[in-house]
Amino acid sequence: MTTGDITFHTRKWVRPEDLNANGTLFGGSLLRWIDEEAAIYAIVQLGNGNAVTKYMSEINFVSSAAQGDLIEMGLTATHFGRTSLTMRAEVRNMFTRQSILTIEKIVFVNLGKDGLPAPHGYTTITYDRDRVPHQHQHQHLGAIAT
Amino acid sequence: MTTGDITFHTRKWVRPEDLNANGTLFGGSLLRWIDEEAAIYAIVQLGNGNAVTKYMSEINFVSSAAQGDLIEMGLTATHFGRTSLTMRAEVRNMFTRQSILTIEKIVFVNLGKDGLPAPHGYTTITYDRDRVPHQHQHQHLGAIAT
Amino acid sequence: MTTGDITFHTRKWVRPEDLNANGTLFGGSLLRWIDEEAAIYAIVQLGNGNAVTKYMSEINFVSSAAQGDLIEMGLTATHFGRTSLTMRAEVRNMFTRQSILTIEKIVFVNLGKDGLPAPHGYTTITYDRDRVPHQHQHQHLGAIAT
Amino acid sequence: MTTGDITFHTRKWVRPEDLNANGTLFGGSLLRWIDEEAAIYAIVQLGNGNAVTKYMSEINFVSSAAQGDLIEMGLTATHFGRTSLTMRAEVRNMFTRQSILTIEKIVFVNLGKDGLPAPHGYTTITYDRDRVPHQHQHQHLGAIAT
Amino acid sequence: MTTGDITFHTRKWVRPEDLNANGTLFGGSLLRWIDEEAAIYAIVQLGNGNAVTKYMSEINFVSSAAQGDLIEMGLTATHFGRTSLTMRAEVRNMFTRQSILTIEKIVFVNLGKDGLPAPHGYTTITYDRDRVPHQHQHQHLGAIAT
Amino acid sequence: MTTGDITFHTRKWVRPEDLNANGTLFGGSLLRWIDEEAAIYAIVQLGNGNAVTKYMSEINFVSSAAQGDLIEMGLTATHFGRTSLTMRAEVRNMFTRQSILTIEKIVFVNLGKDGLPAPHGYTTITYDRDRVPHQHQHQHLGAIAT
Repeated sequence: MTTGDITFHTRKWVRPEDLNANGTLFGGSLLRWIDEEAAIYAIVQLGNGNAVTKYMSEINFVSSAAQGDLIEMGLTATHFGRTSLTMRAEVRNMFTRQSILTIEKIVFVNLGKDGLPAPHGYTTITYDRDRVPHQHQHQHLGAIAT
Repeated sequence: MTTGDITFHTRKWVRPEDLNANGTLFGGSLLRWIDEEAAIYAIVQLGNGNAVTKYMSEINFVSSAAQGDLIEMGLTATHFGRTSLTMRAEVRNMFTRQSILTIEKIVFVNLGKDGLPAPHGYTTITYDRDRVPHQHQHQHLGAIAT
Repeated sequence: MTTGDITFHTRKWVRPEDLNANGTLFGGSLLRWIDEEAAIYAIVQLGNGNAVTKYMSEINFVSSAAQGDLIEMGLTATHFGRTSLTMRAEVRNMFTRQSILTIEKIVFVNLGKDGLPAPHGYTTITYDRDRVPHQHQHQHLGAIAT
Repeated sequence: MTTGDITFHTRKWVRPEDLNANGTLFGGSLLRWIDEEAAIYAIVQLGNGNAVTKYMSEINFVSSAAQGDLIEMGLTATHFGRTSLTMRAEVRNMFTRQSILTIEKIVFVNLGKDGLPAPHGYTTITYDRDRVPHQHQHQHLGAIAT
Repeated sequence: MTTGDITFHTRKWVRPEDLNANGTLFGGSLLRWIDEEAAIYAIVQLGNGNAVTKYMSEINFVSSAAQGDLIEMGLTATHFGRTSLTMRAEVRNMFTRQSILTIEKIVFVNLGKDGLPAPHGYTTITYDRDRVPHQHQHQHLGAIAT
Repeated sequence: MTTGDITFHTRKWVRPEDLNANGTLFGGSLLRWIDEEAAIYAIVQLGNGNAVTKYMSEINFVSSAAQGDLIEMGLTATHFGRTSLTMRAEVRNMFTRQSILTIEKIVFVNLGKDGLPAPHGYTTITYDRDRVPHQHQHQHLGAIAT
């Protein structure tokens, strides 16, 4: 699998509260971290804070991690549907770059004010934060004005 | 999809700490809960506390949940490999019985003392807790003796 | 003490975050778990999400638990008052079936929309989820219709 | 009930993560907080970090609390047994001084290095921290020397 | 530095969930604890639940703490501005009284109903809870009346 | 203040569990997040997992954040001492780029196996993960070999 264009952002330092009873990284913590990071990535791409996880393709837990390891989470958009966004995700060890888990497809759906799927109007990845969600637009203009 | 023989055990009451920023159940919490429940189910089936998540098939987030909803998690073993166990999982709303997510295959691997995959010797589901992990055997006998 | 008709549902896998500073299961975690499970049990029996803990009888911490242990929580209704429900609770080790704590009486009070105690109208245990809280009724019918 | 000689120390500011699904203070959080405070109080009285909750007498949930409330937890020793310590506990609203819950008897047992109940040698309350647990004695002397 | 008039209230028992990956107390937990305690202290002094952290002066992490240590947090008001309150804070080991961190100045700002800084009208420390926030006044009177 | 060369990595989506009782971002959560990110940054720069927070210069809480906001944390090394590393930190709103807090100096100390300050041997920032902590070196080589 190529991870060429995945951008890694959020990092975690594996602490005792993240361990399972065997002393290795708890799988549930891993899934929680990647779901939160995917939500953040989707909000940036769709310019909408109201987007929800709809689907994840199969997940391979390639290797584990131990207390003290540094982990990083990466995503890249792979397809823009009319109301959805598909992403590829990877979690890896920061030092060894060894993959911890990969998910080929995470699909988020863009919701309108009525809570139903709504067209988002985007077809390409943004590498900036130029798709500002509605609640931030006034603040943003204000910040520029100042 | 048939959920015929899935047994639902662990329950959650959706509280504010489980919500995402849109006020619905955070997907990461859901995944964390089902992974913990799968680990518990696998430990009971394999009689071994040292079993790890290896694979999850695709996940459909069929519906969401809101604050105050009661959620229950269910699993059933679908295949006993030589060193692995495959399970089917479902999370659903306790009252409406509406499915929240389903995972056709969650694979756990049984580990030996050396941390490597080890044969577990089981081929059928247990509906009792008769496969006692090593660390509990002495206590168990003690309890019977008393 | 007889625990004859207690039904055990929710399970926990004791992880590092559940331990006290001596490395055994933190009593505060235990009490938190049983209170949440009692709330869930009461909501099912009373068909009302707005029920609060009013009273717990004495608690005996019979034995402790260690990292890696599997714990299960059980409850049964013992008395239906006009506005209250009394339950008996037990937490035990899943493998050894050794009791960890027992509480003879946990009393929940059924609250009306005004936040005051209100009659619930039930006198017997339900073993099904047929007492659907108000907020779920529409969804439930919808699910049947589909 | 007199709360005459109870000393209130630890305080909590009720935040969203402490609420149950009805928006009032989660009973499980309350029990967790008072158990931790009782452990701290017992460690100070017994000069031993290895003391465990053995028993709690009945608990009355007199009133609840809401987001933004300030809560304080208080304890006082009421009986020194040979290997045990009995305390009375109260949680109350800091401003209204309204009682939230009271527990007449919380019993902690003093454990020896073998994990079994051991005599602690104390018969009266200390209002100072003069009963220094073994692991702190060297540091304490060092601090004085400097 | 003199810590003469600092009053220590809230206490913590360092448990596994508070440790960093090296097994010592996680600095982020320490900062979280002192910020919450400062908020509580400020609410009591200003009689207003809506006060926010505005500034902290430099922080010296003098010593660390280990699992099982008892920690206590103390504050004292050092200056009452028109809309602000300045406090001095210290976290120390309960037994050795060794300082863990000190912060000479923590400034909270008193907010009005419009979310903007508002005069609080106080110029001296209260050692009682006589400055009752608005939301508690009715309850307080009620409690007296009963 | 210039934030020219700060690199922003870890992101947070402000959820209900991160709010204080007034419904804005809890200051203690903010401090916890930036301390963890600083630890990760220091470990990468020093190639040593055993580094501890020693000092933070004054902290200005410039603006707050609300539920649903996306936050990002950034750091840059500003000085390499013999046994220490000094960093500048900023937390900002991802969309408006408005600063939430800034810390001019966070000092971490590099510890040796004896837990005492030890020379780290670095004088410049690394933009790669080429300073591999001891515990990762074997795995890293292994990963290359495969």
